Amino acid sequence: MAEQPELTIQGWGPPPAGSSTDAAGDRAPALEAVLPKAARRHLARELGWTPRSTPPVPVAEIRLAPSRLPDPARAALAGLLGEENVRTDRESRLLRAGGKSYLDLLRRRAGDATDAPDAVVLPGTTEETAALLALCSEHDVVVVPFGGGTSVVGGLAGVDPDDRPAVALDLRRMASVQELDVPSSMVTVGPGMRGPALEEALGREGLTFGHLPQSWEFATLGGYAATRSSGQASTGVGRFDDLVTGLTLATPSGVLEVGGAAPASAAGPDLLGLALGSEGTLGVITELTLRVRPKPATSSYEGWSFRTWAGGLAALQRLARHDLLPDVVRLSDVDETRANLLMSGSAGARVLRGTLRARRRGEGCLLVVGWEGLPDMVRARVRAASALLREGGGVRLGRAVGESWRRHRFGAPYTRDTLLDAGLLVETLETAASWAALPTVYDAVRRALRESLTGGGRRPLVMTHLSHGYPTGASLYFTVLADRDEELPIQQWLGAKRAATDALLTAGGTLTHHHAVGADHRPWLEREVGTLGVEVLRAVKTRLDPKGICNPGVLLPD
Amino acid sequence: MAEQPELTIQGWGPPPAGSSTDAAGDRAPALEAVLPKAARRHLARELGWTPRSTPPVPVAEIRLAPSRLPDPARAALAGLLGEENVRTDRESRLLRAGGKSYLDLLRRRAGDATDAPDAVVLPGTTEETAALLALCSEHDVVVVPFGGGTSVVGGLAGVDPDDRPAVALDLRRMASVQELDVPSSMVTVGPGMRGPALEEALGREGLTFGHLPQSWEFATLGGYAATRSSGQASTGVGRFDDLVTGLTLATPSGVLEVGGAAPASAAGPDLLGLALGSEGTLGVITELTLRVRPKPATSSYEGWSFRTWAGGLAALQRLARHDLLPDVVRLSDVDETRANLLMSGSAGARVLRGTLRARRRGEGCLLVVGWEGLPDMVRARVRAASALLREGGGVRLGRAVGESWRRHRFGAPYTRDTLLDAGLLVETLETAASWAALPTVYDAVRRALRESLTGGGRRPLVMTHLSHGYPTGASLYFTVLADRDEELPIQQWLGAKRAATDALLTAGGTLTHHHAVGADHRPWLEREVGTLGVEVLRAVKTRLDPKGICNPGVLLPD
Repeated sequence: MAEQPELTIQGWGPPPAGSSTDAAGDRAPALEAVLPKAARRHLARELGWTPRSTPPVPVAEIRLAPSRLPDPARAALAGLLGEENVRTDRESRLLRAGGKSYLDLLRRRAGDATDAPDAVVLPGTTEETAALLALCSEHDVVVVPFGGGTSVVGGLAGVDPDDRPAVALDLRRMASVQELDVPSSMVTVGPGMRGPALEEALGREGLTFGHLPQSWEFATLGGYAATRSSGQASTGVGRFDDLVTGLTLATPSGVLEVGGAAPASAAGPDLLGLALGSEGTLGVITELTLRVRPKPATSSYEGWSFRTWAGGLAALQRLARHDLLPDVVRLSDVDETRANLLMSGSAGARVLRGTLRARRRGEGCLLVVGWEGLPDMVRARVRAASALLREGGGVRLGRAVGESWRRHRFGAPYTRDTLLDAGLLVETLETAASWAALPTVYDAVRRALRESLTGGGRRPLVMTHLSHGYPTGASLYFTVLADRDEELPIQQWLGAKRAATDALLTAGGTLTHHHAVGADHRPWLEREVGTLGVEVLRAVKTRLDPKGICNPGVLLPD
Repeated sequence: MAEQPELTIQGWGPPPAGSSTDAAGDRAPALEAVLPKAARRHLARELGWTPRSTPPVPVAEIRLAPSRLPDPARAALAGLLGEENVRTDRESRLLRAGGKSYLDLLRRRAGDATDAPDAVVLPGTTEETAALLALCSEHDVVVVPFGGGTSVVGGLAGVDPDDRPAVALDLRRMASVQELDVPSSMVTVGPGMRGPALEEALGREGLTFGHLPQSWEFATLGGYAATRSSGQASTGVGRFDDLVTGLTLATPSGVLEVGGAAPASAAGPDLLGLALGSEGTLGVITELTLRVRPKPATSSYEGWSFRTWAGGLAALQRLARHDLLPDVVRLSDVDETRANLLMSGSAGARVLRGTLRARRRGEGCLLVVGWEGLPDMVRARVRAASALLREGGGVRLGRAVGESWRRHRFGAPYTRDTLLDAGLLVETLETAASWAALPTVYDAVRRALRESLTGGGRRPLVMTHLSHGYPTGASLYFTVLADRDEELPIQQWLGAKRAATDALLTAGGTLTHHHAVGADHRPWLEREVGTLGVEVLRAVKTRLDPKGICNPGVLLPD
């Protein structure tokens, strides 16, 4: 198994060796690289922001509470897993302290890791994991599964209503390919495996998995399953859910195997769908069987431009209706398109600026589409879809823009560290809605964010793109920039997040399209699934986790 | 709402007016039409069957037990629904006595309907249904939802371990289109609606739903959802599960709304997947939102021929791997292909015989493929797939064979009545498995059926086709013909079914790909989902249906 790069305690970087992102060096890119002088000046004016240096406190000064893991529990865990797989050292605990949301980073940057787990445990098998969960049930120790640590919704919060000690259950010892069934296009893997390692193993057989979220360099397959992830190409290859054919869930009450080798079944309700998205609250996913596919023989990424957001939406809705959506589809609104052009000194912006000028287009709305597959099929799909895009007012900008997007596809979280260092609030949120409801959701979220974050000379910049298309609707992804309130930065964002979430639910959006519920969205889960829906989930949890030790801080409201 | 045709008490027919099936007249087609003289002679020899006339007992002689519905319960139900919607007359009860499996038909043809419900209730809304379930909980009355009555796995058994009175809850009063959201390609309907009525309503808008199981003329949308149905074109348009975006489930504990308008969500486990396939055990589906699509601009059905079953499977596996499977795909094995040629006097067999002769092919294995969609896309898909089929040894037989299959697609259940009248055992079973396991499952099921049904001069004919393809595997559909044991016909089939089910599970198949669990498969559910899986389902049921009145005879083992 290749050495896996680690996220840092206080941010995202450094990028792994060989990464295609522009970020380089020890940590995030320099502010000048992200925001050229004109952009800094423009943003300062727009946001009421004073560019400044606000670096995180030194790692050595981060506050960590003493481990509360009782000696008997520790001894029992060490007896089960071996001493080396029960860790309470400072670095192990700090590295599993929460995820990578803006709120997580604010706390860690301010030197606060008092919410870190009391220990880190590393089981190596399904059986060890099940035994560990039974043991922790007995000793009243909370268990928080830890994959890549990339949650942006507080999925690793470890908060317990009874304030019991908590361990992070690190999945890295279960990170290998267990079986590759080439005729059936299925691979069975450990949950701690990451995307790059899986692609490397599959690539040797001419295969690919193709799930590429922004967190791809660090996130684990188990984490994708537990959070119902979707990737940048999910419009084409399917959401992570769609690609799981079966999994093993170790619970305090025993081991549950769901799904299985058959491609489809009518044998009762879908238990696989109960395990997916369970966010560690029912147990720990210890094995996954996934659908793989041949490496695409050809791929083609292009830029298109639409004068208006509504025009772009209408064109994509038409593609969706006829099953002609590209594998990757990202339509940026006017604000995001303009910001991309302005903010980045990278090749992407240069290419886009040049192309728009050559086509005599204003900024408009940028659409990036990506097609992958057999050459003849890609050709036919591109032809049919391009005709509809043109009919809808789209203008083709060509491949350079598309390829530029592809090169920078994992770059945003690195950039975020740079912007945080300069005194900015930077956060994203997302939802999905039917095509009919999409315009209302878009307006409502933007309004809520603007109203909440405007005041005291501050005004936010809200950038939006449609990131995944479906026959019946699409997802929306919002990025917010604002001058950070250094006095009450957490409250500043919590207010905005609350307003935006209320607004999107009222307008018909779902609570989350791919970030999951975590701690951050749990207050709204009942609004999403109803009182009885929460009760059903609780009934399942009570059966599998009667002592409530499995990630009690997330998903289900207290 | 147009008048809906009824299935008969003792069989399938008569076909609805305007049906495209060859069956005509009052009931099933004549034996001579189904089996020409040479075929009768051949089958008699092969099966050890003596063609004979074994008509069902007259309907007037069918035994029906007196209704056990207690007066207070009856009065309460009538108070809720109105007298006209609480029925205990003989015909109403007989028409809801079980489904249409071979075992159901054996009982009804022999004059036994002692398992009929004690009453039929017809709620008109979600609220009435929820109130009805609460009321039946209070009065200890079992509730069996009844849609089209087409279950072939004992899904309407109404058997209760505590032998409480049972009512059939007929869905026909909730059978209309409630909302059509054209931009989002979604329609909201009542569960009692049938496919033809839905297609008629959608057709006026240039839309289609496209779910076409063999039971399409009679089955209801609610039934499809409760049993995780798949249709003949599900390889292309998706299984019924895939086409449901949300539903309302009335339970004794209240109303649960799952899924919703958003096209995808990561907000916790999939509660929609729990309601789908719940077979009435958690409550009654009272509303469904479904994905619709534009009527295909073009469609093309073709026949192909492969020399061997293994060769045909390999070619389809290759199509599946490259996402090139047709919308409809049916590969018959040698036995089924030969039987089709021999048994049917219909146009289908004539066309196939003629085409095979013209191509100088032996019987081999018939493959029917169907393509639907935009002309350019169909053309590209057909071209790419045809190249792979040819490389795999397939020979194109042309459209006449494909179109002939399409014309007869709903015919088999009518034919079955004719064969039952002539002293035959006729039944089907189905499963699905990974591409790697498919050959083993095929062999194991055939061997089990042959061993079980051979003896006393009898030998079965087992015909098989692959009916649905997926990237990771496919389904297999087995049809069995044998001389009926007139002494112990039920035991004859139960033995064969038990042997085949054990064999397919051992070989890696799923318990059921699209017929559901019902009463017939419940002894094997634990083998399929594990002890803990059954416990999870029980926990959900206990939360929603604490008195256990919801269809207690199916799905979950006692």
